[in-house]
Parts: sequence; C-alpha cells; structure tokens
Amino acid sequence: MKKILIVHGPNLGLLGEREPKVYGKTTLAQLNALLEKEARRLKVELKIFQSNWEGAIIDFLTAERKWADAVIINPGALTHYSLALRDCLSAIGLPAIEVHLSNIAAREEFRRTSVTAAACRGQISGFGVRSYLLALQMLADMKK
Amino acid sequence: MKKILIVHGPNLGLLGEREPKVYGKTTLAQLNALLEKEARRLKVELKIFQSNWEGAIIDFLTAERKWADAVIINPGALTHYSLALRDCLSAIGLPAIEVHLSNIAAREEFRRTSVTAAACRGQISGFGVRSYLLALQMLADMKK
Amino acid sequence: MKKILIVHGPNLGLLGEREPKVYGKTTLAQLNALLEKEARRLKVELKIFQSNWEGAIIDFLTAERKWADAVIINPGALTHYSLALRDCLSAIGLPAIEVHLSNIAAREEFRRTSVTAAACRGQISGFGVRSYLLALQMLADMKK
Amino acid sequence: MKKILIVHGPNLGLLGEREPKVYGKTTLAQLNALLEKEARRLKVELKIFQSNWEGAIIDFLTAERKWADAVIINPGALTHYSLALRDCLSAIGLPAIEVHLSNIAAREEFRRTSVTAAACRGQISGFGVRSYLLALQMLADMKK
Amino acid sequence: MKKILIVHGPNLGLLGEREPKVYGKTTLAQLNALLEKEARRLKVELKIFQSNWEGAIIDFLTAERKWADAVIINPGALTHYSLALRDCLSAIGLPAIEVHLSNIAAREEFRRTSVTAAACRGQISGFGVRSYLLALQMLADMKK
Amino acid sequence: MKKILIVHGPNLGLLGEREPKVYGKTTLAQLNALLEKEARRLKVELKIFQSNWEGAIIDFLTAERKWADAVIINPGALTHYSLALRDCLSAIGLPAIEVHLSNIAAREEFRRTSVTAAACRGQISGFGVRSYLLALQMLADMKK
Amino acid sequence: MKKILIVHGPNLGLLGEREPKVYGKTTLAQLNALLEKEARRLKVELKIFQSNWEGAIIDFLTAERKWADAVIINPGALTHYSLALRDCLSAIGLPAIEVHLSNIAAREEFRRTSVTAAACRGQISGFGVRSYLLALQMLADMKK
Amino acid sequence: MKKILIVHGPNLGLLGEREPKVYGKTTLAQLNALLEKEARRLKVELKIFQSNWEGAIIDFLTAERKWADAVIINPGALTHYSLALRDCLSAIGLPAIEVHLSNIAAREEFRRTSVTAAACRGQISGFGVRSYLLALQMLADMKK
Amino acid sequence: MKKILIVHGPNLGLLGEREPKVYGKTTLAQLNALLEKEARRLKVELKIFQSNWEGAIIDFLTAERKWADAVIINPGALTHYSLALRDCLSAIGLPAIEVHLSNIAAREEFRRTSVTAAACRGQISGFGVRSYLLALQMLADMKK
Amino acid sequence: MKKILIVHGPNLGLLGEREPKVYGKTTLAQLNALLEKEARRLKVELKIFQSNWEGAIIDFLTAERKWADAVIINPGALTHYSLALRDCLSAIGLPAIEVHLSNIAAREEFRRTSVTAAACRGQISGFGVRSYLLALQMLADMKK
Amino acid sequence: MKKILIVHGPNLGLLGEREPKVYGKTTLAQLNALLEKEARRLKVELKIFQSNWEGAIIDFLTAERKWADAVIINPGALTHYSLALRDCLSAIGLPAIEVHLSNIAAREEFRRTSVTAAACRGQISGFGVRSYLLALQMLADMKK
Amino acid sequence: MKKILIVHGPNLGLLGEREPKVYGKTTLAQLNALLEKEARRLKVELKIFQSNWEGAIIDFLTAERKWADAVIINPGALTHYSLALRDCLSAIGLPAIEVHLSNIAAREEFRRTSVTAAACRGQISGFGVRSYLLALQMLADMKK
Repeated sequence: MKKILIVHGPNLGLLGEREPKVYGKTTLAQLNALLEKEARRLKVELKIFQSNWEGAIIDFLTAERKWADAVIINPGALTHYSLALRDCLSAIGLPAIEVHLSNIAAREEFRRTSVTAAACRGQISGFGVRSYLLALQMLADMKK
Repeated sequence: MKKILIVHGPNLGLLGEREPKVYGKTTLAQLNALLEKEARRLKVELKIFQSNWEGAIIDFLTAERKWADAVIINPGALTHYSLALRDCLSAIGLPAIEVHLSNIAAREEFRRTSVTAAACRGQISGFGVRSYLLALQMLADMKK
Repeated sequence: MKKILIVHGPNLGLLGEREPKVYGKTTLAQLNALLEKEARRLKVELKIFQSNWEGAIIDFLTAERKWADAVIINPGALTHYSLALRDCLSAIGLPAIEVHLSNIAAREEFRRTSVTAAACRGQISGFGVRSYLLALQMLADMKK
Repeated sequence: MKKILIVHGPNLGLLGEREPKVYGKTTLAQLNALLEKEARRLKVELKIFQSNWEGAIIDFLTAERKWADAVIINPGALTHYSLALRDCLSAIGLPAIEVHLSNIAAREEFRRTSVTAAACRGQISGFGVRSYLLALQMLADMKK
Repeated sequence: MKKILIVHGPNLGLLGEREPKVYGKTTLAQLNALLEKEARRLKVELKIFQSNWEGAIIDFLTAERKWADAVIINPGALTHYSLALRDCLSAIGLPAIEVHLSNIAAREEFRRTSVTAAACRGQISGFGVRSYLLALQMLADMKK
Repeated sequence: MKKILIVHGPNLGLLGEREPKVYGKTTLAQLNALLEKEARRLKVELKIFQSNWEGAIIDFLTAERKWADAVIINPGALTHYSLALRDCLSAIGLPAIEVHLSNIAAREEFRRTSVTAAACRGQISGFGVRSYLLALQMLADMKK
Repeated sequence: MKKILIVHGPNLGLLGEREPKVYGKTTLAQLNALLEKEARRLKVELKIFQSNWEGAIIDFLTAERKWADAVIINPGALTHYSLALRDCLSAIGLPAIEVHLSNIAAREEFRRTSVTAAACRGQISGFGVRSYLLALQMLADMKK
Repeated sequence: MKKILIVHGPNLGLLGEREPKVYGKTTLAQLNALLEKEARRLKVELKIFQSNWEGAIIDFLTAERKWADAVIINPGALTHYSLALRDCLSAIGLPAIEVHLSNIAAREEFRRTSVTAAACRGQISGFGVRSYLLALQMLADMKK
Repeated sequence: MKKILIVHGPNLGLLGEREPKVYGKTTLAQLNALLEKEARRLKVELKIFQSNWEGAIIDFLTAERKWADAVIINPGALTHYSLALRDCLSAIGLPAIEVHLSNIAAREEFRRTSVTAAACRGQISGFGVRSYLLALQMLADMKK
Repeated sequence: MKKILIVHGPNLGLLGEREPKVYGKTTLAQLNALLEKEARRLKVELKIFQSNWEGAIIDFLTAERKWADAVIINPGALTHYSLALRDCLSAIGLPAIEVHLSNIAAREEFRRTSVTAAACRGQISGFGVRSYLLALQMLADMKK
Repeated sequence: MKKILIVHGPNLGLLGEREPKVYGKTTLAQLNALLEKEARRLKVELKIFQSNWEGAIIDFLTAERKWADAVIINPGALTHYSLALRDCLSAIGLPAIEVHLSNIAAREEFRRTSVTAAACRGQISGFGVRSYLLALQMLADMKK
Repeated sequence: MKKILIVHGPNLGLLGEREPKVYGKTTLAQLNALLEKEARRLKVELKIFQSNWEGAIIDFLTAERKWADAVIINPGALTHYSLALRDCLSAIGLPAIEVHLSNIAAREEFRRTSVTAAACRGQISGFGVRSYLLALQMLADMKK
C-alpha cells in the first residue's frame, strides 16, 4: 500500500476563513477529510501535517522520508523563498508534487516564481482543493 | 455533454521523437488516442488541434469559442513570450488549463515564467501525458 | 487619391465581444464600416486587413507596399514583442501610425513598452475607435 | 462651449529654435495661434500656459480645474519623471490627453516610458504641431 | 476594553545589548514595562510576544486573532523577506501597525523595502521605543 | 517654546477633494486647523507651508532653518524622486519626520521607495491626518 | 550527396530593397542563385525556403528533417525572441548554422543576443551574402 | 569680451554651512567673489545665478542664452534626475561645463550617474571651489 | 580553555545520505565525532547544534553567547536569505566563521551570494568536512 | 599579396590539452600549421601571435597595423570584458573577424555577450579550428 | 619641486591617428611635449608613461609611488572595468586626478561609469588635451 | 614531495603598506617567509609568484602546470572580473584554492562575487595571512 505525506505550509490552518475569494471556503479540516476519503478510495495511506514553521516542515519530511513513498506539498508563501525547503525536498529524494489552491501565475509578481518546484516532479495550481486531489490520484497511479 | 478544446503548441508534433528524456516516448498520435479514450470514459467531447503557428492557434480558439466549454492548452515555447495567445485566452473567456509535459520550473531560466498562465484557471506541469489527463478529469468534473 | 493600409493585429477580430470595458462595444465590422465611411469623406482609398498571424501581417505589408502610401496599424499584443513586425515596418519604408484602442500606458507593466512604435512616425492610443479615425485624418492631410 | 487647458512643459518656449530637426520650425507663438484658430473653428475655449516649472504647471492645473472641461498637456521632459505632475492629473480628475511633437518611442531609451500618461485618457505622439490639433479635435468631439 | 497584540521579531530579545548605537540601550524587559504602563494609562489590554521563530510568530497571531482587536509588530529582519508573515497578517484580517526602532530607510539597501508593511495599515519607524508607544496611542484611539 | 515647520508637498492643496478613498475627506484647511489646535495643546509653535513647487519647499526650509527646531514633511510624490529635497533636509540639519496619509508600502511599485526618508529621523505612514498628529506629539516630547 | 535546408526568416524577401546600407543590394533571388551555383560546385543538394511566418518555418524544418542532413538558417528578427524556433532546431536534431548578413553585435542592444543560436552548431554573422556561402562550404566539408 | 553664465543649483545657497566635510567651508558669497575676481583677471564677464528651483534655472538659461557665450553649471542634486535641465542645456546650444565640488564618483550609488553631463562639453568634479575656477579658465581660453 | 559553538543548519542532519556527490559520505554523527576529537587535540570545548529551524539556531546562538568565545556555522540554505540569522550573528558580537562543505561559488546562481557571511570574520568553503576542521584550528589559534 | 594578423588570446596556448570536449584535440602548433598551409594555398601572408596578456595583444595589433591588411582574432575570455581590446580594434581601423572554437551562444551566460565583436566586421563561432579557416578564406577573397 | 606622474592607458599611443573626431588630432608625442612645457612653466617635474598593459601601469605606479607627489591618469578603457587599477590607486595613497579627452557621459552606455574615479580626488573629462593641462595646473597649485 | 604554486595577484606587492586596517601589517616578504617556513614543516615544496599582470599570472600557471600538484591563489581585484584567469584555472586542471586576506563578503558590493572561485576547489577568506596558511595545510594533507 502506497504511503504519501501531505504537507500544508504556513497559514493554511486558516483555510476557509482567510480571503475566501482567493482560497475558497473549505476549511483545512474539511480538506483533510476529503483527502482521507479519497486516500481510502485509492487505497493509499496518508500522513497529513500542517505547520507555519519552515523548520517543522523540514523536520517532518526528514523524519518520515523512510516511511513515505511520495510527497504532496503546498508550501504556501515558502514557495517563493525557502531555499531550505527546496534543499530538503532534493535531499530526501522522494517524488514530490507542489500544489497551490490559487493560480499563482495570475497574482502578485512575487508569487509567480517558485524556488521549491524545481525540487519536485511537477506542479498543480489553481484548482482549489482539487489541486490536492489531482495530485493524490497522480501519485496513487504512479508505479511504486 | 461537455465540449473541450485540446491545443498542442509548437513542436509537439515531434512528440516521442524529440528529446525523449525530457518529453517521453509517447507520440502525439498516441497521446491524442489516450485523450479520446479518456474523453469517452468521461463522456466529454473533444476537438484536438496541433499547430506550430501562434496565429493558427489563436484562429482555432477564436473559431471554436462558441462550440467549446473549456480549453486545455500546452502552448509549448509560446508559454514564455506569446502575449497574443495570452490575450486570446482572456478574450474568449473560457476556463482554460495550461499543461506541460516537463516540469518547467526545473529547466532553463527562461522556461520558469509563463505569460499565458495568467489567463488560465490553473496549471499542471511535469507529469508527461498525465498532465493532459489530469486536466481532462478536472474539466469533466467542473460544473458546466 | 491617397492609398492607406489598415492593419488589425491579433484578437482584434473579437472586438466588441472581448473585455468591452477595456476595448469598447464596437465590433470590428462596425469599426471597418466607420473607417470606410471616413475614407470616402476624406477621399482616400483603404485596404483593411485583420489577422491573428504575425507572418500574415508581414506578408500583407510586404505585398501591398507598392500600392500603398501609408499604414495604420494596431499590432495588438505584437506591439510588445514582434521584432519581425518592427523590421517589416522599417523595411517597407512607408509612413506608419501605431494606434491602440486602450491607453496602454495605464495597463499592465508589459503593455507599457512598444517595440514596433520605433519604426512608425507616431502613436495614438487610448481613444477607442477614434484612435483609428484620428490617424486616418492625419494621413489624409499629409502631403503625398 | 467646451473649455480646454493647453499646457506646454519645460523648454517648449524654445520651439522653432531648439533642435529643429527633432521639433520642427514652428515657434510656440505660431503653435498657439494655430491652436486658437482651430479652437474658434471648433467653438471651444482655450487657456494656454507654458512653463519650465513643474510646480507652476501643477498650480495652473489646480487653479483652473473648475473652469476647464479637459486638458491637453505636453509635459516635455517631465513626462519621464514627474510623479507630482502625474498625481496632479489624477487629482483634478479631468480628461487629459498627453501629446508629444516627436515620436518618443524612437528616441533615447529614457524617453520611451511616460509616468504621466497613466493619468491621462490617451497619448498622441510624433506628429509635430499636428499632435496638438488632433488632440483638440478629439476633445471638441467628446460629449461634455 | 481594546485588546492589542505586541509582537517582537527575531533578535529583539537582545535589545539594549545589541548594537546600542542603532537600537538604543533600553532592554526588551524595559520596553515591555513601558508598553504595559502606557497600556494601563490608555486602558487597553496587551499580550506581548517575542520570538526568533517566524513560525512561532505566525502561530501566535493565528491563535490570538479572535482575542485581539489589533496588532503592533516589529518583524525585525523578517520585514524584508517573510512572505509567510505577510500572508499571515493579511489572513487574520486585524488592523496592524509595523514598527521599527531604527529608520530603515537610512540603512543598508536590503533594509529599505518591507514585504510585510503591505499587509499593515501603516508603518512607524525610526523613533526607538517611541515607535511602539506612538503605535499604541494610535490604536487606542481607533474606534473599535 | 519648541518651533516646528510643517511642510505639505505637491497636490496636498487638493486634500479632501482628491481621491478621497485613498487620502480621506479632511481638507488641507481642516488638517491645518487640527495641527494648530494640537500645537496649542502641546505648547509648540508652528509654521505651515504647502507648495506644489520643489524649489519653493527647499527655499522655505532653507529660510526657516534658524527659526525652527524640527520639521514635519509630507513630500507627496517628491518622496520618490526629489534628490534635491533630500539634500536640503540633510543640509539644514534639523530633525525631520516624513509623514504620509496613505500606506505607501501597499500602493504602486514606484511609491514603495522613499529617497527623502534617508535624510529624516523616521517615517510615519498610513494613518491619514493622524500621521501628522503623531509626528507632532513625537517632536513635542523630544528634548530641545 | 549531402542535402541541406536553407531557411530565410522574416523580411528577407525584401533583400536588396530593404535598408541596403545594412543588408546590401543583392536580392533574395540573386542570393538563392548564388547558393544554388555554389551548391552545384560543392555537389550538395539544397531546399530553399523563405517565410515571414515563424510557424511556417517550424513546419518546413519539421517536414524536411528526414530528407535533410543539415540546416542553414537566418532567422531574421526571430533570432531574438522565437523560443519556438529554438525548440524546433533542438527537436529535429540536425546540425544547424545560424547566419546573419549584418554584424548583429554592432547594432541595437536587442539584436545582440540570440535565443536560437544555442540550438545551433555555430554562428556566422556580418559578411553579407558571404555568411551563407561560408556556412555552405562548412557543411559541405562536414563528414555525413 | 567673453560672457559666461554661472549657475548654482539646489542647496548651494547653504555652501559653507552644509556638511563642510563634503562641500568645504567656503560660502556661496565667497565663491562668487572668487569667481568675479578670476573673471576680472581673465577679462570675461559673468552673470551668476543660484536657485533651488529647476524651473528658475531653465528660465534663466533660456532668458540669457543670447547674451551668453558659455555656461558653467553645478546642477546639485538635479544632476541625477532633471531631464528638463538636460533638454534645456541641449536646446540653448551653448558650450557648457558641468562642475561639482565633491567627487561624485566616490559617493552614494545614485550620485554616480549624471543625466545632465551628456548635454555638456565636459565635466570637472572633486576639486571644491577650484572646480569652478578651472572651468572658468577653460572657457576663457576657448576661442569665441 | 576556549569555547566554541558549532552550528549545522537545515538539512545537514541528512549528511552522508543527501546527494553524496555534492556533500560527501560522512554522516553528521561522524562529522561531529571528528570535530570532538580535533577539539580535544586542540584543547578547546565545543557545543554542537543542528537544526532545520532558523529560529532555533538564533535561540541557540543567543542563549550560548555568554558561554562561547567563537562560532563556526554552516547555515545551509539559510546562507542565501536569512537576514534574521545575519542580524543574530552581528548582535551576539562573537567572532564567527562561515563554513560550507561544497564550493558554493561553483553551483547554482542563487548559491553564489551569502547574506550571512557579512556578519562573520571569514568564510571557508569547498573542502567537505575539512572546512569545519580548518575553521576549528583557526579559532583555536586565535588569541582569546 | 594580402597580409593578415592572426591573434590567439589567453589560454589558447593550452589548446589540445584544455577541456578537449569543448575545444577539440588540435594543439595550437597544429592549428598554426593548418593556418600557414591554408595561407600558402590562398596566397596570403600571415603573422601569428598568441598571448595571455591583453596588453601584449594590443601592442601587437598596434605595432603591426601598418603592415597588415586584416585581422583574425580569437580573444578567448577577453571577448567578454576587454573594452581596451575593443577600443584597439576600433582604433587601428583594419577589417577584423572574431572567431571562436566553441559556440559561445550555447555556454555559460557570461559567454553569450561579446564586447569586442562590435569593433569587428563579423563573427564566426562554433566550428573548432574551421572557424579560423573560414575567416581566412573570407579575408583572402575580400578586395584589398 | 613637485613631482607628478602622468599615465596614459591603453590605445593612447594611437592618439592623433585614432578616431580623430572623438579624440582630436594631437599625437601622444605632441601631448607629452605640451605637458612638459607646461610643467616647466609651473615648475613641476613629470614622469610620463604610456602602456596598453594594466599590469605595467600598476607596476609603474607602485614603483614611482615614493618619488611622486601626485598622479594624473587617463585609464582609457580600463576606466570601466579595471578594479585592479582602482585598488592600486587606493593602495599608493597619492592624490590622483582622472582625465578623459572625450566627454564620457555623452558616449556609449558602458563608458558612463568609472570604477577608477572612486579612488581619485576628482575627474576632468571632455576637453581634449586641455583635460590634462587643467589637471596639471590643479596639482601644481595644491599644497605639497 | 608535494609541489605547490602560490600566486599573489595585483597590488599584493604593497602588502603591509596598503590600507593596513583592511589588509594587515605583514609585508609580502614576511608572508612569503611564513609560507616557506610552514612549507618546510609540512614537507611541501613551493614556487611563489607575485604579479600585477593578469597575463603574467596566466603564463606562470601555464608554465608550471606540469611541475605543480596544486595552486593557492589570491587573485586580488582580478577575482571579480578576470574571466581569462578563471579559464586558465580550469584549463590547467590542478586543484586550486582561492584565498583572500579580507572577508570580501563584508566589503563593497562589487567585491562580493568571485568569477575565479568557480574554477577552484574552494575558498578561504577573511583570516589575513592565516588564509594562506590554512590553504597550505589543506593541500599538504590532500592525497597526491
């Protein structure tokens, strides 16, 4: 059974409450429930982690790198400057997908470049909570 | 029944033959067959178009904008400079998804920014032909 | 009788339908009718051409360079990157006026510079269809 | 009867004498006479003002903002750096047209961007004294 | 009674000891005492928090967002790169004031831009501990 | 009794009328009345000056540098390019506070840097007319 | 017998007529005749193609990639922005030489960088029609 | 007898008092006396003008352009941004020398480029009041 | 006996496992053992700390600043953006040496600048675990 | 009989030994022999010079400028920064061709611009030792 | 008796012959004769040195630093990139004046910045051979 | 016995005399004596070379590349622009260490990037003459 880490970066704890026009009305709890349900359907196992702390995310990825087969990560604003997170994604060597709720290409200038995506297999952005679900399906299909 | 335009930009006609380490071994014909098959499964209708011509792509999108409900587009290298294509995607007003076979965030500097994605709903990149299939599933699910 | 080429660049075929707040409600057919009417009044002859194709516009300008006395061109998004169009305008050596429906100086950063205007006599922007009419009057008055 | 402010920025007092290849041989007095004549023909009233002083221009626009219906302004070199003039044009809220005698897009790099045009309705450049006359006709036609 | 969060960012724990010519000789404990005293005078309630951890500051702001009416934050060096903190300040939706002990406009190039201030109501910088006190008076006066 | 110069830069004469969503509805006369009232309360003496002229502001500061103990200045758009004003503030050697009605860090790109603030003690921005009042209290408290 | 594609990009159809001081007086027909003559001498076979259309050039290169052993291309202004042409040259995998009539290093800033040359074996520029002839000799000598 | 305009730009009225380590202790009156004395020795006639107003300087140069044979100008901070002054120096067509008291190449980054020097014959900087005297000798020697 | 802090930044916990071609095969435990051994030989005392958390590193340096005489720090990816760490190194005022396992000057563009090194005495990079040992010898020799 | 200078810049003495994948296996002696042989065939006379010294190359070009009819120069790394060499090539006024063994457009970013080519007639790059031979043929054919 | 080094940088040996419109018709020998004559008049002693070699100039300045009281240097193109020469001028600690024959502020973009002038007392440019003579007078007057 | 080249770049001949606060009081002779003494202790053989000439350094490295096992180089100001030296270090293929007396990361902007370090194994900067000694120990330990 495939094992997947789901990482929610800074401020995703406020999902549903924070700028709903940009990020939608689904809360993080609801998103996680959707992910768990989809995981059961796809017969994959999840560990879900949210943190506002760059260091905590790196610790989590490092600690779980042996358990996991793949990573789905929404680095939040860390996308745009956390070279330490980028290095971590390279260092653990797991296939990773970067997801974003909003279409970062259509927002402020500083949101249009991602320093973390270069250490991932690919990127899915702009589809709200569906960005995560597509990534999950993608990884579930991937040969172990 | 939902109607979707699939647009393959410049040099995608050489798929399967062109730098297979970057773009994979599937040919465009095979990719289109996969898309048609998936479309039948999802009960959506497709019009597929490949062109090496920026103008032809704009003409196609303009001509089919009334027929279609949505667009999947891999603009190829036009991604990085075709403001005319960007304007076209804005002008026709259909929900569009930009897809890329390779993870453009991990390639040459000039491939890391997309001028067309700002006129799309979102972007899926890095999953080879699966990038298209995920986009198709995404649009099939979207409420008409 | 003076002979003038009118060139409408990419996406101007959607005029009237496309983002009417920015570009107005007049369709291209209506704009062309206005131009023909004004041309009759000013006793100048027109050839009008719209294309979404950079190459087609260059072909048209090249083919008609002997027939024409002057050019009015709205290069659309090509304004901002088509060095080939710029070279063409220089190469044919006709007096040309660049027109824009919207005030490009007040829009997105990338719309604030024109690479084609350097090969024209001047630029008129921001007055909707009146931008074309002013250019026409300007050229009609110019000594042949 | 429509009321229009005509503002000539720095160094336009030397018109006719200053680099005639770039700016033409018409003097400012002659230009103003042409404008007055055209205004009579178009049945609009003018107040004409030339100053080499950014502050004086702002004072003039501020003082006359209630009297006037519209503005024609050639900001001269202030075009490229006077954010104060830009703010003034925004603050008074009148429709304004920026005019230039020469085609600023074909001159030195620093003349290719306008900070003031963003606070105007549009821009006409490159037609010598005709740039002003076109602007006048344009404003005369505009509904009050 | 109005409730205000006071956040001291990285390295402010060393206040009084660290480069006293730039930051003054008042220690953080003394600054906090001044703030508490002023809060009693103004009849507002404070929660004061210092952390060298970006994540801890985001957690604190998130946790206290319901309790608080407003925020005073000195993000320290995070001012210049913490997009996560900026997003947090936007996400919690409380009126915030960014304060700095030193006049950041007169220091190294990299200290002259603030990525966090865009998510605040305003900024007060350069007045030593008085920057905080002014912010406190400002918020105390603001209608709840 | 402490003596303070209050300088309002270009376009502040239109306060209350100009883009009230950004700058508020208080007129300059009302602002000055508030400042005078507060000055009486704080027992400081004011000289207030508004000008749309960079040169006039420099003249005023130069002429009054012996009379005054401190300066409060809102340079308006001069903030972003008037190196002459910056040099003047350095040259007269008085403690100065730069104030802004709006939060310039949250507006257009070109408003985010201040060339004049480097010659001041500090900056207060974003609090409407309160920005001036805070600066006044600040200077009133400062030891002469 | 070696087979070589000769591609003339946008505006080269006007050769001989267009800015003769920069590009010389030889027409395209004369240049092609020279190339055919030299090809006979060198015993290589040519297919010559001129187009003002980026897409047409990509189509031509794609269609003839099996027939040809090598490519000589003068991309005209496309040199400086056509990433699609660059990708095409990489995709077809033939040895290519980029040629220019004029010395692009000594012209306008924007002509000094080539995005297409990186996908070629080398570049010959500045020798008028001789640039093509040298390239032809070069390829004729190359081992098949 | 040769006639020379001496122009002192913004803040030079404070010479001797302003940052004496950078600008020296000589006052403007003393500098002018030195210039007058040297002019008598060299048998040239001077008109000396100091202003903090860009516009006033342009007015002065424009008004005196017929009287004068040459110009010595220290534009102060206007050196770095006054395109209007640059245009004025070009427009009046007199030989001009730009002088600076301090060595601007060794000061802040923004002081290292001069937009006005391009419209002068040459530049002398770094020698305190001697910069003016050298310029005067230079112009006195020049053939009328 | 001299006391030295050794700080390993983000992702150094994966040493030996992470991209061994770049970082070598020595694990962090082995590196620390080497450092302890060398410290005994040099008769200096060490406190060694690894963290993926910028804030934790700042806390550690702050807490131990009185105990320690010097610092050896490998900030990992924080090297390139952690202004907070830079401020901390300045604030604690201890002599510090920045070390890197790899030669950062020969890697990706973003690794070629260090924001933290400016707050250190010097930098040693490119010698694998020897970078640390050299730093240790260096500090051991330094006069207390 | 035409006389040609051949200049090999820094590090070309190591040809054949230095990074043979980039620069080929031919030694400088072999290259020079090839050039001499070709020169005899073409009936031109050569002076060949290699130096690692920018100054020595300038001296050589200066000393031989009267003897020579033309120059072939491979400036090596000086291509990218030696403005002195560029000035020398302009100053001596001989037709010059810049040659490169490798295709500099496909290498590191800093190798993509040439400061010296602007002072040459043209550039040939990417063909190994053939770059020199083509240049030689080119110059031999040129009318004296 | 004051002792002054005169240094002529690369390509100044060609003076009189090289682009006479820019650099004048005086040869280096004639310039040196003028300098010697003026030196006798001013009772200063000269050592004059011309070299196309950056290193030779540094050697000369280093060797003569004890003998000399001051330096006049025209670094030619080294002005724009020779950080080694800049360091040398700083290192020897003599007062130096940078001179240029042409007005570098009015030439190509790359000639507008000087890296060497920051290590000099001042700069005189644009007056042909008079630039040197003014510098000489300047240094002769300076107190030893 | 290991053989090591020690190269001192421009202006290092003035060591001890030149800006002693930055570079220390040790002269080059003293430094070389220290290096020789340490070499004897470490049983390695040295050839030491100082030159202000880029070309001489390249010649020396080229000439001694067969004799030597490794290189220690302080390129002085050449560090920041000598691409020729960088190419030389790559070409000779010996392990090299770049050393600096001062901490270049804490000095002027232009000293913060090294173009030569990319061709070295590593860099040691900021420790005065100790930078060289550490490099020597490092190379002595390296397996031949």
